[in-house]
Amino acid sequence: MNLRDVRLARAYLSRVAEPHAGALSTLVAEVGPLEAAALVRAGDVSPSVASQTSARRAQEQAEDDLQRVKAKGGRLVIPEDDEWPRWPFVSLGVAASHRRCGGEPLALWVRGDHRLTDLAERAVAVVGSRDSSGYGQHVATELAHGLAAAGVVVVSGAAYGIDGAAHRGALSAGGTTVAVLACGVDVAYPAGHQGLLAKIAQAGVVVSEYPPGVQPARHRFLTRNRLIAAFGAGTVVVEAARRSGAKNTAATTLALGRVLMAVPGPVTSLSSTGCNELLRSGDAVPVSNVAEVVESIGRFGDDLVEPTTRTTHDLGPPQGEAMRVYEALGLRDGFSPEAISVESGVELPRVRALLPELELAGLAQREDSGWRRLSPPQPQSQPQSQPA
Amino acid sequence: MNLRDVRLARAYLSRVAEPHAGALSTLVAEVGPLEAAALVRAGDVSPSVASQTSARRAQEQAEDDLQRVKAKGGRLVIPEDDEWPRWPFVSLGVAASHRRCGGEPLALWVRGDHRLTDLAERAVAVVGSRDSSGYGQHVATELAHGLAAAGVVVVSGAAYGIDGAAHRGALSAGGTTVAVLACGVDVAYPAGHQGLLAKIAQAGVVVSEYPPGVQPARHRFLTRNRLIAAFGAGTVVVEAARRSGAKNTAATTLALGRVLMAVPGPVTSLSSTGCNELLRSGDAVPVSNVAEVVESIGRFGDDLVEPTTRTTHDLGPPQGEAMRVYEALGLRDGFSPEAISVESGVELPRVRALLPELELAGLAQREDSGWRRLSPPQPQSQPQSQPA
Repeated sequence: MNLRDVRLARAYLSRVAEPHAGALSTLVAEVGPLEAAALVRAGDVSPSVASQTSARRAQEQAEDDLQRVKAKGGRLVIPEDDEWPRWPFVSLGVAASHRRCGGEPLALWVRGDHRLTDLAERAVAVVGSRDSSGYGQHVATELAHGLAAAGVVVVSGAAYGIDGAAHRGALSAGGTTVAVLACGVDVAYPAGHQGLLAKIAQAGVVVSEYPPGVQPARHRFLTRNRLIAAFGAGTVVVEAARRSGAKNTAATTLALGRVLMAVPGPVTSLSSTGCNELLRSGDAVPVSNVAEVVESIGRFGDDLVEPTTRTTHDLGPPQGEAMRVYEALGLRDGFSPEAISVESGVELPRVRALLPELELAGLAQREDSGWRRLSPPQPQSQPQSQPA
Repeated sequence: MNLRDVRLARAYLSRVAEPHAGALSTLVAEVGPLEAAALVRAGDVSPSVASQTSARRAQEQAEDDLQRVKAKGGRLVIPEDDEWPRWPFVSLGVAASHRRCGGEPLALWVRGDHRLTDLAERAVAVVGSRDSSGYGQHVATELAHGLAAAGVVVVSGAAYGIDGAAHRGALSAGGTTVAVLACGVDVAYPAGHQGLLAKIAQAGVVVSEYPPGVQPARHRFLTRNRLIAAFGAGTVVVEAARRSGAKNTAATTLALGRVLMAVPGPVTSLSSTGCNELLRSGDAVPVSNVAEVVESIGRFGDDLVEPTTRTTHDLGPPQGEAMRVYEALGLRDGFSPEAISVESGVELPRVRALLPELELAGLAQREDSGWRRLSPPQPQSQPQSQPA
């Protein structure tokens, strides 16, 4: 099999069929891309494949398209390439067979030097509304910055609002970020993000199913969203209204069996309604900072966040009167406050006040027989968390 | 059994022992309040009961205390009274036996005319930080107002911040609210809430384990919190920092097997850290409005909130071209966009754009054979929700 011919065949099919073309994909899987391209060219296909290809099958511009993307420093990555992110896309096929979302793409047009499969190994999608609030933009920037600083690849859709903040946050940390577009990788959309897209192509990659020159359209955003979800080990929805493209990405994330996360927001903010709904339905895990995202993904190694509810460490060891009261406690037998007062030399009212504080700190416990000492928890190393 | 004598005995024990006095409660359960009071007076008790009663057993002021609370329009409610909230307090005994929190109170000092057992039948606790934000105060007020308007009794602790906002919200709806104090019901604490407490005593009740004149103390707040949790069918934490008395009430709520709810808040706000942690740990259910609180409690009848994620109703029936495309779809067989274009007379690019919109609205579905019509969901009555 000549890889150049295969690439030309897939470039042709990518131009001819509007993604996602399930019947065509099935044909390619059955007869291979070269044969499939020949059959489509000849119009010698089933009605379902014909409905996906007949309108554009005369558009023979594979060579041109490959040249056009090369002129932009790009290339066409196909499933036959080593860098094809095979495993991340397997679940697309499975989910597609349940008709929950489109299947694997026929090929991906790419600007940027990173190998796709390397990027997908440690990636998280960070998405949200175009119409974001200052809160959402702030959180998206901080999260993406922290994820990138921790070596996580940030995937998003290059839209205004949350997407843009996520890409910028990752870039500002010197990290790698992936923009998945609903148009050709040479199309400056949205117009105000032309400079941002150029930076992403330098530090990361810009990716699309659509051949050069294809303009964005509403249905292409929905089709594109499945690739954002498929690229990451999980998706963080930073801010989303009740109806939002981000909720579509969220649904696909679940259909793919990936981890869906949402950032809690004010219940008074319409921009957070979608996130708070995802939390209440139980579909999404709440995440407040980078450490919690990494913990939720749970496949990047020993990333468990230390629980933050343990207050002992915050309080430090008991001091002064509290230490005297603590030391007067027995480990096995409970003592009355009076007995502890005598033993510690601390006045009874003060003892009564300190004991519940020690209890709150996990150092003492009240029983029917009186107050008993608890061993302090083992010292813990500080979590490597980046507060968002 | 003379109820007046029993009330005097319990008033005496309430003055003598600092709540929660587990050993004394056990003695009362075993020998009855009259005999228990006599034994305590005589000092003829076990060391554990002695440690809870010896310091104050000479304080014979039961008659005075009953007079003092009566002068304030109050009374002492005891387990022997019909209005004693027996069932809500049963779990306190169970939880106490697991040493998770103090058990049932010996008696309750009450200002206000409502029968306690009536109030506890349909009550929810709304709690949170003293040091609340404008966001938290707003949400607490709105939630409490809406709950009260729906006939739910709002229980809280009369503190500054969230507690005060909750009581005020309930009062502003003409509803009933319960303030559980960590001091005598005649003590104006916090000082700035003297007027509020008077209003609560008129429209609802002010309740305390502590006899008249007892001043608040830190350990009393912790002891008090278990009664707030026990009084309600569930607890809503509106706003709480990482370390907060509200988290203590939250822990007790769980120990009592009640529903714990938390209002999501900005991850950038320290005032919401505690709530967001409760959500992430899975201990609390997120609630954004009154309808969700009522649904989460789930015991006030047919209170299920309509899911808000269904967008069809928001969009209304499809119109114009969308309606034509929708009507061109088959219910059983999938059609290609081309076929739909011919059937509907809508231009193909427009058909391609409308189909995903119909899909988003739950009216169409994409399959390998093409696009298929879905039945619209049944019209739903609007939820009786009070947005918070």
